Amino acid sequence: MEQKYRQGGFTLPGEAGYEQLTLELARKWGADVIRDSDGTKLSDEIIQAGYSIYSTICIIRQHNAFAAQHPDSQQQAFLCSQPVVAQGDELVIDPMKGYFTQQFELNDSPDAMPYWQVYDRTANAEMPREKWCYADGQVTITGCTPWHEYTVSFLCWRIWEEINMYNHTTNSWTSEHLRQLDPRNEEAWAYLQQWLEDWCVANPSTNVVRLTSLFYNFAWFFGDDMRNRSLFTDWASYDFTVSPAALKAFEAEYGYALTAEDFINQRKLQVTHMPPTRAKRDYMAFIQKFVAEKAKVLVDIIHKHGKQAYVFYDDSWVGMEPYGKYFSKVGFDGLIKCVFSGFECRLCANVDVPTHEIRFHPYLFPVGLGGLPTFAEGGDPAHDAWMYWRNVRRALARQCVDRIGLGGYLHLTIGFPEFNDAVEQMAIDFRRIKELHSHGAPLAGKCRVAVIHTWGSLRSWTLSGHFHETDKHALIHINEALSGLPVEVKYLSFEDVENGALKDIDVVINAGCAGDAWSGGDAWKSDKLVEELTRFVHEGGAFIGVKEPSAVAGYHTFFRMAQVLGIDKDTGARVCHGRWQYDVQDAPFALHKETLGQEKGLYLTDGTAQVLADREGVPQMTLHRFGKGVGVYMSDFRVGQESNRMLLELLMHLTGMKAEELYLSDSAMVETAWYPADGTLLVFNNAEAATDAVISTPKGEVKVSLAPMETKLIKL
Amino acid sequence: MEQKYRQGGFTLPGEAGYEQLTLELARKWGADVIRDSDGTKLSDEIIQAGYSIYSTICIIRQHNAFAAQHPDSQQQAFLCSQPVVAQGDELVIDPMKGYFTQQFELNDSPDAMPYWQVYDRTANAEMPREKWCYADGQVTITGCTPWHEYTVSFLCWRIWEEINMYNHTTNSWTSEHLRQLDPRNEEAWAYLQQWLEDWCVANPSTNVVRLTSLFYNFAWFFGDDMRNRSLFTDWASYDFTVSPAALKAFEAEYGYALTAEDFINQRKLQVTHMPPTRAKRDYMAFIQKFVAEKAKVLVDIIHKHGKQAYVFYDDSWVGMEPYGKYFSKVGFDGLIKCVFSGFECRLCANVDVPTHEIRFHPYLFPVGLGGLPTFAEGGDPAHDAWMYWRNVRRALARQCVDRIGLGGYLHLTIGFPEFNDAVEQMAIDFRRIKELHSHGAPLAGKCRVAVIHTWGSLRSWTLSGHFHETDKHALIHINEALSGLPVEVKYLSFEDVENGALKDIDVVINAGCAGDAWSGGDAWKSDKLVEELTRFVHEGGAFIGVKEPSAVAGYHTFFRMAQVLGIDKDTGARVCHGRWQYDVQDAPFALHKETLGQEKGLYLTDGTAQVLADREGVPQMTLHRFGKGVGVYMSDFRVGQESNRMLLELLMHLTGMKAEELYLSDSAMVETAWYPADGTLLVFNNAEAATDAVISTPKGEVKVSLAPMETKLIKL
Repeated sequence: MEQKYRQGGFTLPGEAGYEQLTLELARKWGADVIRDSDGTKLSDEIIQAGYSIYSTICIIRQHNAFAAQHPDSQQQAFLCSQPVVAQGDELVIDPMKGYFTQQFELNDSPDAMPYWQVYDRTANAEMPREKWCYADGQVTITGCTPWHEYTVSFLCWRIWEEINMYNHTTNSWTSEHLRQLDPRNEEAWAYLQQWLEDWCVANPSTNVVRLTSLFYNFAWFFGDDMRNRSLFTDWASYDFTVSPAALKAFEAEYGYALTAEDFINQRKLQVTHMPPTRAKRDYMAFIQKFVAEKAKVLVDIIHKHGKQAYVFYDDSWVGMEPYGKYFSKVGFDGLIKCVFSGFECRLCANVDVPTHEIRFHPYLFPVGLGGLPTFAEGGDPAHDAWMYWRNVRRALARQCVDRIGLGGYLHLTIGFPEFNDAVEQMAIDFRRIKELHSHGAPLAGKCRVAVIHTWGSLRSWTLSGHFHETDKHALIHINEALSGLPVEVKYLSFEDVENGALKDIDVVINAGCAGDAWSGGDAWKSDKLVEELTRFVHEGGAFIGVKEPSAVAGYHTFFRMAQVLGIDKDTGARVCHGRWQYDVQDAPFALHKETLGQEKGLYLTDGTAQVLADREGVPQMTLHRFGKGVGVYMSDFRVGQESNRMLLELLMHLTGMKAEELYLSDSAMVETAWYPADGTLLVFNNAEAATDAVISTPKGEVKVSLAPMETKLIKL
Repeated sequence: MEQKYRQGGFTLPGEAGYEQLTLELARKWGADVIRDSDGTKLSDEIIQAGYSIYSTICIIRQHNAFAAQHPDSQQQAFLCSQPVVAQGDELVIDPMKGYFTQQFELNDSPDAMPYWQVYDRTANAEMPREKWCYADGQVTITGCTPWHEYTVSFLCWRIWEEINMYNHTTNSWTSEHLRQLDPRNEEAWAYLQQWLEDWCVANPSTNVVRLTSLFYNFAWFFGDDMRNRSLFTDWASYDFTVSPAALKAFEAEYGYALTAEDFINQRKLQVTHMPPTRAKRDYMAFIQKFVAEKAKVLVDIIHKHGKQAYVFYDDSWVGMEPYGKYFSKVGFDGLIKCVFSGFECRLCANVDVPTHEIRFHPYLFPVGLGGLPTFAEGGDPAHDAWMYWRNVRRALARQCVDRIGLGGYLHLTIGFPEFNDAVEQMAIDFRRIKELHSHGAPLAGKCRVAVIHTWGSLRSWTLSGHFHETDKHALIHINEALSGLPVEVKYLSFEDVENGALKDIDVVINAGCAGDAWSGGDAWKSDKLVEELTRFVHEGGAFIGVKEPSAVAGYHTFFRMAQVLGIDKDTGARVCHGRWQYDVQDAPFALHKETLGQEKGLYLTDGTAQVLADREGVPQMTLHRFGKGVGVYMSDFRVGQESNRMLLELLMHLTGMKAEELYLSDSAMVETAWYPADGTLLVFNNAEAATDAVISTPKGEVKVSLAPMETKLIKL
């Protein structure tokens, strides 16, 4: 193996006290950069060992002294009490009941109280202010309607930075609870700029400031009962950006006022998985602009000191929106994304920023995000790493990043030599793949896929957070499958579709449950959207609908695209209608039935759709010719080797791509990428067993034998 | 066995040509009445054998000569074409495409055309009349929006009476297709009265005219493709009552006009399983009044001739509504219901009419309603009969009818002696049970159950048709279970609840899917309803919610009774909310987990509900104390011996009923009824195997040994 594949593009988490280990693993893994992590420090010995140095800063955290002196500079959130049933006309509610008081503290300041609201949830009506009063942590409501439920929505201070809170509660940290400052507070903002200025001066060895991340964490509400600790978490929620100052500034800029209910939303809150209100869209845009403005000031300070500014795409990332319109103007030098999955690599790789870095999992922590042991007794971090690498490698084969790395406590690798060997191999494979990309892009089939949903490109590749946090949604499975397929992928909003974005598209995918952001909900009330997609398919396009695509109530069909799909779902009104009988037909591709769901109520609209799979007499996958195009229905999609292969073969069937054009292997376990500039075929084995495969190429068949998980480059 | 149990209360279907068989089985089964059936005749020998004679008349059928002379006297219906996608601005639609042309014929008469409508189904808008024209069976639409879907709603003549059509198509009848007259047509009505008058004169031996039934059949639309023959069928639908004359009369009476769309309803039609529109409610009331008025005229003619008038509660029963406000005023002498199930016995027994008769299944036909053989090779009619009897007997034990009987072709029993023996035994058991009732009602526990749904008492016991036609709905399973339990049962509408009907109720059941008539749909937007039920439970009542009880969108909880149930269902907005952990707890009764469903998205609201069963981490049955009462959630309910027993034990738990108070057996297979006036305990074995049981009574335990399916009377 040439030395160029043994070194570079690798960020190693160093650890003071383990200097020898740090330098030894830096050599083994070919690190060019050493970083600190949340909870670790670098010693002078490490800093002066000749590596570039990343220093991790969580800019709004670690200022407890300032926060103590300026408690009103802390961040806030809207919360809503539990609902309480009135038995008579008076009711007392403790708003904080059920919330974790180490995270939240009532904000009953004069600034905050005008934003409190009391709701009659049974009548869906706000109670007039004269009907309630607040004193000593309790709200007393008068004039209640007996047997109605009431809630109190209120502002609170967030007195424990959430990632610190997570680390304490997960890893039994005992250090001081870190607070967080709101840059919208003018004193805090002046302080933070000066603090960064001072920090840069005090850390001359740092080459890259790794911001983790900016100002506002994703929403994460803790409860006080261990039976329901995590009350709410949404990676893309803006709940933690709110404050009276923000609300006043919003009103001044947008000409209308937001209320607590705009956030509380009947205690459902506003999740990324549901279509946003107009107010939420406006508020997000408002916060994005603010975050970008403030971030630019920080980046300018860092640049002034001759350092680079990388930003971590997690944790306090809310508002920075790498796929939003302000991100590229901030001037970041790099973006770092932690990855479990292929879609996260694509999410990172597509951002308009000079350097893209992915941080591998497992994180060097005793337990993983799911709470299972990793670098601890019972853990198998080498296996974990290979499984994540399997997800990541196929995405890297399609679109590469610039750097890889790890994070956490390096000393935890002691006793796990297989893990260290695995990382060494992955780093080599990464560098070989990266080199291929540096000569030219890999071949993609003539199949331009558009995934359409509410958020469009703003939520390219991701839904809201990691795969395991969103795996109930069919779309994350589809995104993950697509992340490694040899096709072009775009994310379009429904407005994009209405505005002509399908002109460069061959296949449209809409995958979600009725009413959610991924299916689209009320967006499907747009006739223009239906017209455009109907035209698109009739003229030769393909529409793949998954689960409850294009579903909205109020029309003659529940799926607005039923005319194209040839299948619809009964929501009760058609229970007395007859159902078309059908024979299950052979699919024109390798059907992987296990990936489908068990939807009920599906029925063929006019009996002309081909049923490829059914369960209990209900079609679960259909093909339906419509004009020159095809509508495809799948009741679900679950990622996996066979599922990914099925999706690819389906796309081949829909667009006429041939196996040899795609350098397709004959095994679902073996994937490939063809780099024309290099004349090199990348072949990799996704199986944990040795696998033989035959690759179809324009020059004929190529036989390969691959060791478990092996990555191979073949010059053709 | 005393002779009194061997004879009486039994209606036998005689058959000309099988006189000896008729009289032999009349003796064996203890018939006091001989009837004809659809397709059979009685000979003089049978008529003069000393039995009472029922003669079956389908009053609107069998007048083909008149119908041919007066084609505009035939019945009609609204149909809607298949939707067609416009590719340009003009479109031609064949309205009849897909419909069975032997059943339907376009009505393009000047009377009918004003009721035709063309709809842009994509835009949900009616096309102005000037945009379309009709000629030669086709509608040409201009000014279409490309890629929108269009339909034509139209009136048609129904040229084949549906039960006759069913018999032809199921049993390969080849006789002339019978037409049907609409009594709203004045000429037809005059003709029908005279015809009945003449008929009565011509049939002096007939004691009872058995009307099968009145004027309008339940809706049953046939398609022309054998892959989707039965396009629509709803036992309680009023679709077949419509005509221009009816629509004009409605407008005159109600002051507003109905349109085709009031019936077509976006091609969904108006099914009994969905909450009705105001227009549908008005229209039903309008038809009910008309049907009762006309029926009374016929009954008066029959009475004038010294005969009795019984009516069959199926087929052309639509509009007569035995649970409606006009039925008892018609003057019928008896009501005959065909029964597969216990709920149908209760449905019959509760009607305000002098004589209640049930017609057993299997019907003496080669095949049953489901298409499987009965009196044919591969059939086992004796076993079928025992299984239906098992359903019926437990209902008869609670509330008896006056008569039983059979229908069909008697000669088909030849070669099935076990069937003949079974019927003999059932007839004896029926008479013994009937005698017990004649001395006084059986004991019911102190548990007054109200099933609440949209239709209230109008749809007491039934949903829409037979069990096997409605078995997707949890409520029919609950009704069937309740039909044999020792509790009082009422059916209340939501308006009844709002108006104070819960004052005599201990347990309320609401069972259905979101939006359907059984759950209630928009009725749950009534705060008053929620208040009243919340109060009811808080003060000590019980609320049992099944599947998606009290579900309606737009509130802070999806189940409006979530505060009482302690459980709610997420429809997507709460996907990022934490879920309360729980331990599954032992139920305070014999839990039959198999009866429950596999609902997803259910979550505990505040963690205080006891989870009795779960699947894949989702609670499926919960108990939740609320004030002095209890909320119970079940994700489904499927009738069966163990399920019925579980429901009874649940009701006992909720109301404090004791085993000995109920003469409860220790076996789920053995049920009982206690007749205090007679001091007699009725015990019966629902198992096809011999079963021992111990019965708890106030006088101590009673041990019984029962043969398979045995019915036993024990004096205590």
